[in-house]
This record gives sequence, structure tokens and C-alpha cells, in this order.
Amino acid sequence: MTLFGIAAKRLVTCDPARATPVDPLGVVEDGAVVYDERSIRWIGPRVQAAADVRMVDYGDRVVTPGLVDAHTHAAWVGSRHDEYAMRMAGADYRAIASAGGGILSSFRAVSAASEEEIAEALASRLRRMADLGVTTCEVKSGYGLEPDGERKQLRAIGVAKVAAGVPHVVSTFLALHALPESAKSNRDHYVLRVATSLVPEVGRSKLADFVDAYVDQNAFTVDEARIVCEAAKHAGLGVRLHVGQFADVGGAQLCAELGALSADHLENVDEAGIAALSRAGVAAVLLPVASFTLGQAPPPVAALRAGGVSLVVASDANPGTAPTESLPLAMSLAVRMYGLTPAEAILGATRLAAASLGLAGGASGRGVLAPGAHADLVVWDLPHEHAIVQPWGAPKALHVLRDGARIGSR
Amino acid sequence: MTLFGIAAKRLVTCDPARATPVDPLGVVEDGAVVYDERSIRWIGPRVQAAADVRMVDYGDRVVTPGLVDAHTHAAWVGSRHDEYAMRMAGADYRAIASAGGGILSSFRAVSAASEEEIAEALASRLRRMADLGVTTCEVKSGYGLEPDGERKQLRAIGVAKVAAGVPHVVSTFLALHALPESAKSNRDHYVLRVATSLVPEVGRSKLADFVDAYVDQNAFTVDEARIVCEAAKHAGLGVRLHVGQFADVGGAQLCAELGALSADHLENVDEAGIAALSRAGVAAVLLPVASFTLGQAPPPVAALRAGGVSLVVASDANPGTAPTESLPLAMSLAVRMYGLTPAEAILGATRLAAASLGLAGGASGRGVLAPGAHADLVVWDLPHEHAIVQPWGAPKALHVLRDGARIGSR
Repeated sequence: MTLFGIAAKRLVTCDPARATPVDPLGVVEDGAVVYDERSIRWIGPRVQAAADVRMVDYGDRVVTPGLVDAHTHAAWVGSRHDEYAMRMAGADYRAIASAGGGILSSFRAVSAASEEEIAEALASRLRRMADLGVTTCEVKSGYGLEPDGERKQLRAIGVAKVAAGVPHVVSTFLALHALPESAKSNRDHYVLRVATSLVPEVGRSKLADFVDAYVDQNAFTVDEARIVCEAAKHAGLGVRLHVGQFADVGGAQLCAELGALSADHLENVDEAGIAALSRAGVAAVLLPVASFTLGQAPPPVAALRAGGVSLVVASDANPGTAPTESLPLAMSLAVRMYGLTPAEAILGATRLAAASLGLAGGASGRGVLAPGAHADLVVWDLPHEHAIVQPWGAPKALHVLRDGARIGSR
Repeated sequence: MTLFGIAAKRLVTCDPARATPVDPLGVVEDGAVVYDERSIRWIGPRVQAAADVRMVDYGDRVVTPGLVDAHTHAAWVGSRHDEYAMRMAGADYRAIASAGGGILSSFRAVSAASEEEIAEALASRLRRMADLGVTTCEVKSGYGLEPDGERKQLRAIGVAKVAAGVPHVVSTFLALHALPESAKSNRDHYVLRVATSLVPEVGRSKLADFVDAYVDQNAFTVDEARIVCEAAKHAGLGVRLHVGQFADVGGAQLCAELGALSADHLENVDEAGIAALSRAGVAAVLLPVASFTLGQAPPPVAALRAGGVSLVVASDANPGTAPTESLPLAMSLAVRMYGLTPAEAILGATRLAAASLGLAGGASGRGVLAPGAHADLVVWDLPHEHAIVQPWGAPKALHVLRDGARIGSR
């Protein structure tokens, strides 16, 4: 088997086995990573690399694991620019909803699109994300709302997932996102139908890896989400939840109770909620582009950090509250607006993000440069990992590998 | 002569002759723009376009004038990522300077680089800017500090300017940026030498179109800048000034007195300063990426607007306080952080930016879709101009023309 290698001034491994208090990212200077068509085989000082490796030297540049975007609604079609302009002019969630905006706006666009159109829009978006350095991307449904629409969106994710040049995709059935018009008069029936019919079907057909629900005021209650998430666990699906974006209604405690892998948003979570996440080892997925768009105060990052909660940074890519395609921009906002250190932002967009998607360690490991993990990496056209979190607003990845194959670059 | 045409659902002309109070951007729906190898020849409803035009139809997309970035320090080499990380951790300007950061850090990098290396770094950066939709870019020197260094940087800008695939470049001699070590003990002599020797030389050799000076506390005084700017006017060069980034030391009044085309930054400017800008017709060039990086409060946008001051948005691209390459990101921050409307941000990055560079109207006109202006335009992979100011963090330009020729695209 041919072995390939990449050498560079700084290899940011994100490997806990190499991390130290002064070097939380486990940097190998003048390092080399050796890989085959799928996995990383060796990492170490360049001068110790085997001689029969096809080595490319990237000089004074920095190499990181491929970025992992752990929370996106990237399978959208249409545009909500009017809503964005309204929001910038001060309109709130309700004014926008009553003007026909919000989730129901994307529901209409997804309803009107074919599975092929959704898949094509998603694959194009995923390729642009790859150009920015993303090699793994979680993608949620949730703009179908009705069973047929959700099936269509999940199938479209499945189609885009195997397109050329895209990141590895983890798919999530966003089972409770908004109530469709048809369910307004009977929400209990809607929730029960999702739990007893759609979730088991998604589990059987392997259309998704996770189930998600939007637990918040003006969304779904803890009790409603619990019914659906218990069904998800029964169907062999993982759980991740939208929690506390607008109000703390106890979603963090539900995440802990269910053994969810992540609690996402957390702009509003109290001490008890943080303690619950901490005890249960639930990761916090921070979504700074959404709080930028909404003009919200940051989540309680210092308390989450003090509680030992794993801090993940994701793009939240969606057409309404986070109309972005850039995980690096989210990292930049996490550092500037949320007070994460550059090292925290990088770990939160690599190893910790992968862990929140069940992709930590062993042969399924991603988000880390370590022997046995997938050969997912980014050569940056930058000399140091700290430069990655600057607000470039442009692709700064020079060479992006997923499973040992090039998927994005400039 | 062959005529080419581009048709699209929305042509955002930014033409004052088409603007109305409800449509400040002068949009032509279902429009077409016809151009030759240099200029726009005709604009109007698509159905009225001449039949012999080679027309490409971009369907439901939006077309704008090419973006004009009116304030950049893009001719940098090196990286100031350590300084960025320090700043995010709360270090201030002085702590960074005493750790070897700041302008003097870029001075060292530019000193160590050859003219060719600087030109190559700049041309690459300009091409990435073109991919984001920029067709005109102002570029300042100012990292040379000593005469030889400034000459080298200005010559490098001249070389990059004629490289393939770059925006139209307007060059500015940033005559007073920071005091070099050699001048610390004799700043009067330094300022006089710049005014009496270097500025006239730059004027004679046509190495720059404008002269700029950094008027602020810990930088240069109004009196020092006046000496240099009077020399600039005498040498036939235009004037634009850095004013009020950290403190109001009267720079706005100096801009008005000198007939400067722009006063840039203005995070700190009082009512008298705004009134002076207003009376003299000096444009305000807003630089939101810098205030994002520095964690500063916005400039007094409402008062500038009320005073009828022209609001320009620029990237400030520089390795320290605005380590970005994206004018669209600056537009997004101007809307979210500064309260500009999407239409203001678009005008401020097209027609008004061009006017602040002396490129308004007639055959030298840029930043506008109007007959006679240069054929500089962007076809966006977006359905509406409001979507341009969303925080994409990624190139959303599909097709970028400068002087009728393709320079950037995805």
C-alpha cells in the first residue's frame, strides 16, 4: 500500500495524548503526518518519517485536523434575506413569523423543491464548506415538518452525502422543529405521531444517525421532547437537542437525563442546568453566528468552562438566524464575542466536535491527527493556528483532505 | 465592436439617476446590462436589449456594481497572529507594542521582504478579494516607514496592480503611520523630510494617487499631518486621513480644511467634527472589522447620517487590527454592529466608495451600473441584494467582471 505524507512547520494534532497544560493542542513542530487511502498511520518529527513515504512539504504552514461542524441546517433551499433585513432593522422573532418568515418560510421552500434540488443545493454548500476546511458536517432535517417532507429532506441528505468532494456527513432527524399548520389544533397528536411512527421508521431505514428537538419557549416543551427522544433511543438513534436559545425551560437537564451527546445553543441556561450537563458529560455546542444575527448576549461560557463542560463551536448554518457557510467565521466570533481562547475554538471545531457526533477515538475517530483516525486534515495558508481564528471572511485552507483524498482547496 | 450582455432578475444599479426614496439602490427588475471591453453601454429592461448582443442570462440572481474597497493596507507580508491572540485575551495597544507587535512588527516583515515578495503576496490577496466581488481596491503603503521601505512598498503595489486577475488598484502613500526607531528622538525632522522630500518625489514619480496620515493620540498630530498633506496637495496628490480611531484630536476638522476626500475610522469624533465633514463634503470611511477586532464601540453613525455625511464601508484589511480579506464581511458587520441598512452598506461599498477614491461619474466612474462607467460588476449566487450583507464568511460571487473582463468567480 502506498503511503503519503504531509510535512509542515506546525502539526496541530488536537491529540489528548500529546496535549499539555502549556500546549493544549499537542503541536508537533517540524512534523509529518503519514496516511494511506483512509487513515492516519504515523505522526512525528519530520526527520523520523520513513523514507518510502510520498511526502509533500508545506514549509512554514500549519496543519490541523479537518474541521468538524457539529450543528447545521445546511439542507435548505430558498433565501430569507427579507427576514434578515427586518431583523437588522430591529424586528423580533414574532414580527418575522407573522410576516411569513421563520422556519415556516423554509418549510414552504423545501416543500416546493424536489429531493434532487435539495440534494444539489446541499452538495454545493458542502463543497464550499470543504473549501473552508470542513471535513465532517452534521446536517439536520427539520424543514419538512410533515412526514413526507421530512423523509424527502433526509433522503436528500443521503444523496448529497455520497456526492463527490463533500465532507463526511452525519445526519440528524430534527423531529420537533416547528408545528406545521396542520398540527396547530392538535399538537399532542403531532408529537405522538412523530414518536411512534416517524422516529422508528427513521431508525429502521437508517435515514439518520441522531434525533434532535427544539426545546424552548414558543417551540417544544421538555415533556414533548422527552417522548420523542425516548423513542429515538429505543430506535437506536443518538440524541442531541436545541436548548435554551431564547429561554431556559429545563432542556439541559433533559439532555443529561437522556444521555444526549450534546446540548446546543445554551444562550439561556442556569447553574442547575450547567451542573446537569457537567455531571452527565453532555457537550455544549455553541452557535455564535446565531447570537450575532440575533444580537443576543453570549451563553455563560465561563460557568460552562468552570463546570468542565466540553465546549464545541459550530456554524448553525441555516437560512434565517445564521445565514452563513463558514465554521471558521463561527470560530472567529466564538473567540471575539464569547471569549473562547484560540485553542478552545480549535479543539471545539475538531476533536470535541467529533466527540459530540460520536466520532471520538478508535477507527471511527475524526477531528484529531493521531494514528488510526481518519486521514482528515487541513493545510492552512497560514503560519500558525492562532491565525485561523482571525476574521478572514475568505477561504484560507490550501489543501483539504478527507479520508486521505483531496476534497477542497484553493 | 462586439457587445456583451448580462441579464438577471435584479440589477442593482446604485445609479443616483434611478434611485428613489423607496428604492435607494435604483433596481432594474428583469434587467440587462450591455457592455464592451471597457465600459457599460446600456442598461434597461431585458426585453428592450438590442438583439445583436451576446447575452448571458443569470436567471433569478442579483447583479451589483463591482465592490469598491476604499481603505486597505493589503500590501502586507508576515502574520501577526500572536498579537491577535493577545488582543483577544484582553491586551491593549501598548502591551502589544511593547511585546514587539503593532505597526513596527509589519515594518520588520516588509523590511525583510523583497519588492517581488510583497507584490506577489499582494497580488494573491487581491485575487482572493476579487473572488469575493471586489473590482476596485485602494492599497496603502505605510509599513516601510523609512524612505527606501516606502518606495519599495509603493513599487510593489505598482507591480501587483498590473498582475492578471486583480481589481483596479488605487494606491495611497501612507506618509505618516508610525515613527521608525531612527526618528524617535527627532520627530520634527522626520515629518519635515517626509513633506519636503518623499511626498514631492511620490507625486513626480506617480507612485501613488493619494497621501494618508494617521492622526490620533499616540500617532501624529493635526499640525504634523497638515504639513505633509499641504505638500501632497502641492504635489498633485489627493488626501485621505486616518481620523479618530482612538481619540478625537481634531482630525475631522483637518480633513475639511484640506478638502480631503475621506476621513477614515471616526470611532471618536464630536459634533463639531461631524459638522465640519458635512460642510466640506468629506466622506466617512467606516471600518467595522477594526472595531470588531478591538472590541470598540461603533462610530456615531446616526449623527453622521443626520449630517448628510456620505457613509463608506471598507475592509481596513491589515495584519493587526483587521486581519481580513473580505469587504462583504465588513458590510455584514456594518449592518449588524453599526446599524447601517443593507442599502447603505451596498452604496457604501460601491458608488460612495468609488466617489471617495475620486472615481465618481463620467468615463472614470466605477461602483455604479450606468452607461459610460467602467464595466465592473458582480453576479451574485444570491436572489436579492439584501442577502449580500448576511455573514456568509465565504465567497458568494458567481461571476466578477472588471473592465468587461472576468477576474474572479467560483
